[in-house]
Amino acid sequence: MRNPLTIEKPTLMLHAERARRNIERMAGKARASGVRFRPHFKTHQSAQIGEWFRECGTESITVSSLDMAAYFAKHGWTDITVAFPTNIREIAKINELADSVDLGLLVESTETAAFLGGNLAATAGAWIKIDVGSQRTGIAWDQLDAVVRVATEIDKASHLTTRGLLAHAGHAYHAKSTDEIRRAYRDTVLRMTHVRDGLLSKGFEDIEISVGDTPTCTLVDDFSSVDEVRPGNFVFHDVMQLDLGVCSEEEIAVAVACPVVAKHEERNEAVLYGGAIHLSKESIVGPDGARLFGYVVLPTENGWGPVVQDAYVSSLSQEHGIARLPAHVLEGLRVGDLLMVLPVHSCLTVSLLKGYRSLDGETIAAMGGA
Amino acid sequence: MRNPLTIEKPTLMLHAERARRNIERMAGKARASGVRFRPHFKTHQSAQIGEWFRECGTESITVSSLDMAAYFAKHGWTDITVAFPTNIREIAKINELADSVDLGLLVESTETAAFLGGNLAATAGAWIKIDVGSQRTGIAWDQLDAVVRVATEIDKASHLTTRGLLAHAGHAYHAKSTDEIRRAYRDTVLRMTHVRDGLLSKGFEDIEISVGDTPTCTLVDDFSSVDEVRPGNFVFHDVMQLDLGVCSEEEIAVAVACPVVAKHEERNEAVLYGGAIHLSKESIVGPDGARLFGYVVLPTENGWGPVVQDAYVSSLSQEHGIARLPAHVLEGLRVGDLLMVLPVHSCLTVSLLKGYRSLDGETIAAMGGA
Repeated sequence: MRNPLTIEKPTLMLHAERARRNIERMAGKARASGVRFRPHFKTHQSAQIGEWFRECGTESITVSSLDMAAYFAKHGWTDITVAFPTNIREIAKINELADSVDLGLLVESTETAAFLGGNLAATAGAWIKIDVGSQRTGIAWDQLDAVVRVATEIDKASHLTTRGLLAHAGHAYHAKSTDEIRRAYRDTVLRMTHVRDGLLSKGFEDIEISVGDTPTCTLVDDFSSVDEVRPGNFVFHDVMQLDLGVCSEEEIAVAVACPVVAKHEERNEAVLYGGAIHLSKESIVGPDGARLFGYVVLPTENGWGPVVQDAYVSSLSQEHGIARLPAHVLEGLRVGDLLMVLPVHSCLTVSLLKGYRSLDGETIAAMGGA
Repeated sequence: MRNPLTIEKPTLMLHAERARRNIERMAGKARASGVRFRPHFKTHQSAQIGEWFRECGTESITVSSLDMAAYFAKHGWTDITVAFPTNIREIAKINELADSVDLGLLVESTETAAFLGGNLAATAGAWIKIDVGSQRTGIAWDQLDAVVRVATEIDKASHLTTRGLLAHAGHAYHAKSTDEIRRAYRDTVLRMTHVRDGLLSKGFEDIEISVGDTPTCTLVDDFSSVDEVRPGNFVFHDVMQLDLGVCSEEEIAVAVACPVVAKHEERNEAVLYGGAIHLSKESIVGPDGARLFGYVVLPTENGWGPVVQDAYVSSLSQEHGIARLPAHVLEGLRVGDLLMVLPVHSCLTVSLLKGYRSLDGETIAAMGGA
């Protein structure tokens, strides 16, 4: 990478070529399947990276908050779904957005539908959130009566139009194998189709199915049973996806460059400037059963090298990261050198660092960044 | 609290009266012990809250980064220790600060001391970082030769003056009882005194001892064996301190107000707008052995009530928080209501939310906030 000496503090490095390749591949699969691609932009949160999606034909996007919707609306996006249960306390922002873009909202209760019916001042689309097994939120897929009640309440609301059913197979993140992830996709489609058919049998019309998460959308090639897909993380991937068997190392497009500030040879550790406020405390269970906060890679002229075997970030405090390193790596390291950390969860790391530096040394801004 | 209806999204509520009382108590103990009070400002990161410390006689502060040092220097603080191993890549910022304030730096290797010797352009104080048992970083307290080598290298550096020895008893956070925390303080003092006596016997002079972390400094009343104390978290406390037996519920001065966006009676859960990007993924082990991301309290006219029994935040994703609630609480709750979450680690929550709202509805800015 260019001018590594100008990196002073924990810096989110972006491998643009990998990110663009990840985008092209996923957009291509959606296109080949004939379904709408509505990628989740909460992963990158960057207007500039958004343009790379636009170059691949993307017109519709997903975001996780109204503030993020407003950010991307300002940057020219006009078809935005907020994939989070509608927070009725933000009705003023909802109305502002509904007035200017094609806004999609998640509704999962008659209370929320009724509130929007009474308070929406411009037209918005409603997606009924269905729980296909993750048990985070949404109406359980086998509770058709509850879905019908919500759809009925939406129909009563003058400014609200039912777009369809939306699910996130979050349980795919707990799968023990890639086969189990593929099964989660098949189950999701079956369950969503069951709910849609139930609604159609009750006289509701034009009910779309929206699904999407990176594990299932990466491992599945044919999306033709649904109407749109909304994966987000795939643009960068991370240690969690690698650990799930969803991506290869060469598909991970972000790494945090961290200055080495101390060495402790007696316990095979280096102390990094790079802590919980840079990487987030997201973790996976490491090979020895302990929590692991990132893999270690070494900077190279063209980016970074392969994951260093037997190396990982073993603990994080507010600003410190502790990297466990094999003796031969630690020996060659000096205070002031850079180590790079592949984050466990790239979305959270982006949200903390709020901006990128490309391998060419270019600054790429993100929402909320300087 | 005033105008709760104007709270639209996850908002860090500050109980100013409690925070001021926490400050007065700790400042009073340092004064009574005749030692310098150098509170860690990384917890609150706010110029305005800094003024509350100044009103209690505070003149010296601790921060965790050079950017934070620059922020507080801009707000009139002139005696600032950066309690993080010196990151030599930021030498330009170091020189800028050393030129304008009484800057304290942490040094724990001859390499860093030599680098500062060759590159410091203005005078700075050096604190030798000693590891008294936490094994995060620093020179192990029983490695006197290594300490002497670093002190010798500091002496050679024309712009660097040895201030003393600095330790953080981070292992107090793993204590199983308050007695064990008090023992961690006694051990810290013994070990630091041992190192200081060793340095004095080698001809070094004026070696101060700086210690400080919230668990030990809260439970110990007499600091007269050391020269300065640097606790930080005590200003707000949090679930971690409560869990350690270090504070009472009534001493916790921050809570995150979170809109309820969905209810799931069948599993006793409410979905909150308040996730990992608001609370951080810091956790403690809950009563059932599972991870716990915050306690739940209910808003009242004057702030918030006691911790709701059998209630806690059981999981967090990027924006969602799942609150486990007893049936009688869930029953009375409506979508659009506010629940409040006591954070597990207030420092990280502040760092994410970058600003406060007082119970009177006043906005209190913090570093990096709008």
